[in-house]
Amino acid sequence: MDRIIDKMHEAGIKVILGTPTYSIPAWMWHQHPDILLTYQKGGKAYYGIRQNVNYTDPDFLFYAERIIRKMMEHYAKHPAIIGYQVDNETTPRDINNDNFQAMFRNHLKEKFGTVEALNKTWGLQYWGMTINDWDELAPRDGITNTAYKLEWERFSRQAVTDYLQWQTRLVREYKRDDQFVMQCYMPSVQEVDQRESAKEMDMMALNVYHGYQDDLKGDEIAFAGDYFRSVKKGVNYLVTETNAQTIGWNSRSQQPPYPGQMRQNVYAHLGSGANMVEYWHWHSIHYGQETYWKGVLSHDLQPNRAYAEVTKTAGELEKIGKKLVNLKKENKVAILFSHDSNEGINFMPFDQGGSPWENNPNDYYRNQLVAQFHRILYRNNIGVDFVFPDDDNYDQYDLLIIPSLYIASDELLEKINTYVRNGGHVIMQFKSGFCDENSMVRPMMAPGPLKEACGFHYQEFSNFRTMALKGDPFGAGSEHNKVSTWAEYLICDTAEPLAWYDHPYLGEYPAITVNQYGKGSLLYQGCLLSDTLQERIIRREMDRLNLTTPDQQLRWPLITKSGKNEEKNTIRYYYNYSSEPREITYPYNRATELVTGKMVEKGNKLTVNAWDVLIIEEPAR
Amino acid sequence: MDRIIDKMHEAGIKVILGTPTYSIPAWMWHQHPDILLTYQKGGKAYYGIRQNVNYTDPDFLFYAERIIRKMMEHYAKHPAIIGYQVDNETTPRDINNDNFQAMFRNHLKEKFGTVEALNKTWGLQYWGMTINDWDELAPRDGITNTAYKLEWERFSRQAVTDYLQWQTRLVREYKRDDQFVMQCYMPSVQEVDQRESAKEMDMMALNVYHGYQDDLKGDEIAFAGDYFRSVKKGVNYLVTETNAQTIGWNSRSQQPPYPGQMRQNVYAHLGSGANMVEYWHWHSIHYGQETYWKGVLSHDLQPNRAYAEVTKTAGELEKIGKKLVNLKKENKVAILFSHDSNEGINFMPFDQGGSPWENNPNDYYRNQLVAQFHRILYRNNIGVDFVFPDDDNYDQYDLLIIPSLYIASDELLEKINTYVRNGGHVIMQFKSGFCDENSMVRPMMAPGPLKEACGFHYQEFSNFRTMALKGDPFGAGSEHNKVSTWAEYLICDTAEPLAWYDHPYLGEYPAITVNQYGKGSLLYQGCLLSDTLQERIIRREMDRLNLTTPDQQLRWPLITKSGKNEEKNTIRYYYNYSSEPREITYPYNRATELVTGKMVEKGNKLTVNAWDVLIIEEPAR
Amino acid sequence: MDRIIDKMHEAGIKVILGTPTYSIPAWMWHQHPDILLTYQKGGKAYYGIRQNVNYTDPDFLFYAERIIRKMMEHYAKHPAIIGYQVDNETTPRDINNDNFQAMFRNHLKEKFGTVEALNKTWGLQYWGMTINDWDELAPRDGITNTAYKLEWERFSRQAVTDYLQWQTRLVREYKRDDQFVMQCYMPSVQEVDQRESAKEMDMMALNVYHGYQDDLKGDEIAFAGDYFRSVKKGVNYLVTETNAQTIGWNSRSQQPPYPGQMRQNVYAHLGSGANMVEYWHWHSIHYGQETYWKGVLSHDLQPNRAYAEVTKTAGELEKIGKKLVNLKKENKVAILFSHDSNEGINFMPFDQGGSPWENNPNDYYRNQLVAQFHRILYRNNIGVDFVFPDDDNYDQYDLLIIPSLYIASDELLEKINTYVRNGGHVIMQFKSGFCDENSMVRPMMAPGPLKEACGFHYQEFSNFRTMALKGDPFGAGSEHNKVSTWAEYLICDTAEPLAWYDHPYLGEYPAITVNQYGKGSLLYQGCLLSDTLQERIIRREMDRLNLTTPDQQLRWPLITKSGKNEEKNTIRYYYNYSSEPREITYPYNRATELVTGKMVEKGNKLTVNAWDVLIIEEPAR
Repeated sequence: MDRIIDKMHEAGIKVILGTPTYSIPAWMWHQHPDILLTYQKGGKAYYGIRQNVNYTDPDFLFYAERIIRKMMEHYAKHPAIIGYQVDNETTPRDINNDNFQAMFRNHLKEKFGTVEALNKTWGLQYWGMTINDWDELAPRDGITNTAYKLEWERFSRQAVTDYLQWQTRLVREYKRDDQFVMQCYMPSVQEVDQRESAKEMDMMALNVYHGYQDDLKGDEIAFAGDYFRSVKKGVNYLVTETNAQTIGWNSRSQQPPYPGQMRQNVYAHLGSGANMVEYWHWHSIHYGQETYWKGVLSHDLQPNRAYAEVTKTAGELEKIGKKLVNLKKENKVAILFSHDSNEGINFMPFDQGGSPWENNPNDYYRNQLVAQFHRILYRNNIGVDFVFPDDDNYDQYDLLIIPSLYIASDELLEKINTYVRNGGHVIMQFKSGFCDENSMVRPMMAPGPLKEACGFHYQEFSNFRTMALKGDPFGAGSEHNKVSTWAEYLICDTAEPLAWYDHPYLGEYPAITVNQYGKGSLLYQGCLLSDTLQERIIRREMDRLNLTTPDQQLRWPLITKSGKNEEKNTIRYYYNYSSEPREITYPYNRATELVTGKMVEKGNKLTVNAWDVLIIEEPAR
Repeated sequence: MDRIIDKMHEAGIKVILGTPTYSIPAWMWHQHPDILLTYQKGGKAYYGIRQNVNYTDPDFLFYAERIIRKMMEHYAKHPAIIGYQVDNETTPRDINNDNFQAMFRNHLKEKFGTVEALNKTWGLQYWGMTINDWDELAPRDGITNTAYKLEWERFSRQAVTDYLQWQTRLVREYKRDDQFVMQCYMPSVQEVDQRESAKEMDMMALNVYHGYQDDLKGDEIAFAGDYFRSVKKGVNYLVTETNAQTIGWNSRSQQPPYPGQMRQNVYAHLGSGANMVEYWHWHSIHYGQETYWKGVLSHDLQPNRAYAEVTKTAGELEKIGKKLVNLKKENKVAILFSHDSNEGINFMPFDQGGSPWENNPNDYYRNQLVAQFHRILYRNNIGVDFVFPDDDNYDQYDLLIIPSLYIASDELLEKINTYVRNGGHVIMQFKSGFCDENSMVRPMMAPGPLKEACGFHYQEFSNFRTMALKGDPFGAGSEHNKVSTWAEYLICDTAEPLAWYDHPYLGEYPAITVNQYGKGSLLYQGCLLSDTLQERIIRREMDRLNLTTPDQQLRWPLITKSGKNEEKNTIRYYYNYSSEPREITYPYNRATELVTGKMVEKGNKLTVNAWDVLIIEEPAR
Repeated sequence: MDRIIDKMHEAGIKVILGTPTYSIPAWMWHQHPDILLTYQKGGKAYYGIRQNVNYTDPDFLFYAERIIRKMMEHYAKHPAIIGYQVDNETTPRDINNDNFQAMFRNHLKEKFGTVEALNKTWGLQYWGMTINDWDELAPRDGITNTAYKLEWERFSRQAVTDYLQWQTRLVREYKRDDQFVMQCYMPSVQEVDQRESAKEMDMMALNVYHGYQDDLKGDEIAFAGDYFRSVKKGVNYLVTETNAQTIGWNSRSQQPPYPGQMRQNVYAHLGSGANMVEYWHWHSIHYGQETYWKGVLSHDLQPNRAYAEVTKTAGELEKIGKKLVNLKKENKVAILFSHDSNEGINFMPFDQGGSPWENNPNDYYRNQLVAQFHRILYRNNIGVDFVFPDDDNYDQYDLLIIPSLYIASDELLEKINTYVRNGGHVIMQFKSGFCDENSMVRPMMAPGPLKEACGFHYQEFSNFRTMALKGDPFGAGSEHNKVSTWAEYLICDTAEPLAWYDHPYLGEYPAITVNQYGKGSLLYQGCLLSDTLQERIIRREMDRLNLTTPDQQLRWPLITKSGKNEEKNTIRYYYNYSSEPREITYPYNRATELVTGKMVEKGNKLTVNAWDVLIIEEPAR
């Protein structure tokens, strides 16, 4: 390690040092076989892979602390080292070891105080499963109670938080003031509480992987950027890992980038607010599981097409990078993201095609509902942030999008009501407000505390495959005028129906409503809209609220991102996510394209080549 | 409990009390963790769900007896209580605990006497697996011998019988003479020996769930009614559970009924012979696994659409219910149901698409073969009963339908032969008579003892996808003139071929034959018929045997059911299973529609509205 | 046993006696429960089936040796017995018992010497998994290192070799000189090292099962024959088991043969070089798992259609069999078969549709790549042998076909280079030469040591679904002009491109190249060809190398096989694999059709009936 870091320093390469805790050495497993993960229903982890350790195990924590302290003592002074990463892509890992079960029971004692309180809050009397003593609480394996399962997932996220905070504090004891601490998070954002776990870190960092070739759309890059930028507001983030040549744990998904795609991706990250892009990894590995997770260099260790494109991009960044970093955005639209709602829906899923008897958590909330809203905003070039249940900044936004907020406390629902009452505008999806924070269905007329803001009530709901909206009210065309999956039987009180189901019986209930409430409005979707319908609804609201900008004249595969740089100038990126050159009409003030240095005037026709990007700096006025 | 039952009594609500044995309390699992089920190959049940206990476990039986006796002592005198339900939806549950293995070996000792007899009867010499001592008999886990597997399933059904009889006798020690005992059986009728297990009960009760909206066909209601009515002949049954609003253990299969469907279902049950319809459950639960198994009331506990329809129906029943209960039927057609054949086919399945190497019991006999015959009878308004291998009443019926009777003793086959010889008529399906009662293939020319009644023999059979019958002999049309899955190479001795395969090589064998034998006849299907062909065959036989009635002028979605009430008048129901009104021509004598009180004459055109029913009483002549 | 063998002898039936070790008796399991197999990740075998024993277990080996010695002592002198079969269809069985793990570690100690050498060769430093002591090497369960997995599979094949050699030597101690020893191998040839395990046997024997009716193509028969004929060169093989009437471990895949198919199969085996055809089994079994694996006789034990056809064929063989046995072939084409490449691809699969995260070994190399080459040679009547990495006879062949040789030592690659340099011709498939014998990707420009013979280099490769070749260069037609799955980005040095991808970006790389190298040539396929393209390429090479014979005027369903019999006359078989009679023009010298005894002249039109065969003997000139 000394040799390598010294060599890096000599070559002018800066080093971020990671704590080496995500893969344990063979001797540790051999001396402490119980250190490995136990899963539910007798499943267990085996040695031979990384991230197989129970990171709440005392033996493991002993060795982890020892190596972190030794490493920090030795390296903190090294001039090459600019910062630290704690662990790697930490997730809850479904720990089910006995010590974790005990920790969970202790957590419950602390949170609920008495078994009587637990029995009542969780409804354990159903099927006669009340407990008389904490020891009678069964392990997670066969549990059906949704409140138990929800709390278990919270506690599992808390374990990640505790572990990363513990490592962060250890590193902070030794690090220099000019060095930072961070962790490389994954874009499967539902797994971890990013805000809590990064509280004592200096910045966010993330590892984003995606398809290449015709599968490169830029969605994942934009989603990750928007999300992590919102976790630590005002601090730009790092991309610590992303695709170099190809990815995959076998040879089934090799997709070397088309010419231009690697370079375009760097600017896609910067346009979303990244301050750094690193590749996993430098050269391709000749052994083991990640043989086909190729680096910038192939196994031959020779210069190649990828290396040439990285070199070209790095040269550009040397020239113009200062103008691109620390980009700041002021978005008018936000999506409310609820970890609890993701889990609550996991345990009572409503997606199509699955069994009514068995549930395999599929993160439908994250991967379908939230992803659809974000994808449509992205493809229409509408800048978006995320907000979270604990945030108190909703009123910074003109439009708040609320995907199925299945799990929510009264307090959160009241915060939404207040936001609307005070002039905010909401697009809300079905099932919002259905359960309280313990997964109890509210024993009141749905949508419970949201009833007034929504302007309707309902007592019934139905799954179904697909239906049309009567009369195609949004002009989506017969192929796209489709709703699916879920329908609430809304009965309007003060709300105005916007669309009706085309169905002999459900036809008497509106599919979409809008309600004026206080100074704001709430548009409600009682069913799952097709992408086209969702796009029509969102653009309609954007127009209605005067939020539409010239950016909405473009649509994917032409993507634009913008923000203000350190000089307060506006940086505008124009990306072409296709294999054909495309033309845009520049709609803003006189500016400079930074790569070519050419002047650009309002109304100019500009060509964006295939998988290319224009980077335009418009001076602050 | 006292408070609740007293309140019920005050309100005039009658109570059926269940023994509380299907879900064990947390303390019981905690003190006796071995009480939970052990499955095959190391699988095990976990606490957190109901019906996870080994009900042959002595610890469990101790506690079960204690609570049943205490409960009966306390409640038997209560005037609100009209009857008792023992346990809940009891099934074999795949018990594989050590004590059960030992019980099974004891059962074999008793049944077979010596290991030599067992070795010989089961053919254990194959692959050299004979045993020298009972202890050498391996557990069920890795067993391939079909005779072992068949006997294991019989013994598992016997365990249900023993358990329910034990509870029934306990309850009988305490109950009043005016109180009844029953169990709520499930329509997956293959799992349990209903007749034996209910021998000491007063009546049958059943829990029927089904699709709603466009998935409501009435099949399951009719099947369950026909089956359970046949188990205890002459005694009408109760429906203890059925869909209230929606069902499902998650939110994937919510289907609130269309207007009229809940009411129509009540009369569908009554028309099949039910004397009561109860819903599971009164109001929707706010916690746990059955959050979306909604009751009559929604989670808001307010009156709603379902409540209104139940109220309306209850009002009608108050008025006309007396005329509808204790309906008696005299059907001319019966289906022979064989639990053993269901299991025998499970272990040597012949269905399409599965692997030739692995078998997952899929109850093809029950769910495809028997279900097809019943569905076609139901949809053609042909009243049907079930008969069982031990019954001696076959000659009550003119037409006996015998789905693939794969497992059958010589005695049973001789009973069928005698039935035909004495003038009965049979429709028999392939594979009948192939194995004896120990799953041994008969070492004689197939179809063994049935050879004379069938009038053919065969030595070969083939699986295949699909073929036509040559020349479309039943005018089914090219889409429906299809047979599939299985073909026996029948060689007629005295039988007459009715149809041939359209195939270059199989074309020399008949697909369907009919044989006159004694005073009766036997129609044999050597292959699996399409629904349309099966319908043509059955109606052809009905015509030939002069069994056709005016009811066959209607066909699903127009369904009619009938029977004689306590006044010996004929009650005729006409149901419309569709969303459009339909017209019928009333073909019977002057009568009264009971809901409206209107007179009805022969030849009158009557409208049955969407999801509605007419209930007509024709006076006894 | 004495009674049976004596009876056989009396009836003139010769006996091959098998050692009875593939199914253990119940008492052995009961006394030694640990004798059963333990699989990976806690899986285990159960009693009740055959081939469930750990055949490296000392207890098992004790009993196995005892019974083999007793049996040999008793029977070796019996005049009916002509030979011995050791065990039955032995495969590695995924043994994972502790003793096997220990044996594996001992094997590694012996092979690698030090842990340092192992760490380095296997790249265990990746993810920090180096070991300091042999005991720290984790069991196979959770291993991701591909070198470990590859060596484990080799060691598993070695276990089969050791076990069969041990049994062979035991039998050899007792057997008479006129008796042979063999084993019945399965055509899943990737599982076992046939050559090593049969080294001390007298001949190969094989069990070939296949579809019947329209699924009978003859591929499996030809593949097995070509492969096993190549294992022991110069010694003809036995077919110890093949389909009698029907097969399957349940009733889902019954396919009695069409008239003629059983007889045709006998001659298909003989035409491939078999000296015997036996059926599994004589009569159908009335009990247990193989009830539907029917014998020549059905369960009725009566003469039947199959028996008649076997009788007819046996009569013919009595007459002409002497002319047909010990057939010798001199093929010009060989396929190189690499067990290691099969496993290497299993652990880094590139097939479509699978997950990039999880691998279930699917033997794609054997079942798709090798099978495609063989199928096309077979269907074009091109005689083919197999060669193996250790063979030194490549120069016997004019054309060597090399399916993806993913795992290969430098030595093997140099042998191929030398073969081409000396005038040999190769058709080579993508991924060849990628890894060394320890599954390490070669750290040099691909295709590594093959670079000069190939005449190109590449640094990149891509998975994809399907693409056309630009301009349909082989006239395959738009439906069949398709490549798929894998594309290497070949950059020609000396090679000549034969075809290009029709794709905006991949279009700059050739899909197929040919390179003149020394006196030979190497045609390389950088992608997976459709069957039609593969056929065009192979026939093009055959023409170019003057290897085409009159046999290529026929194509499946007309198949011809030939060879020289003991009199050095040429035997030519003509098979019709279809249900219609077909005509051929006989292209060889005056000869005799052996079944009919008719003379055949060059140019004669001959009819081969449906599922029939002509057997023509052309005198040596």
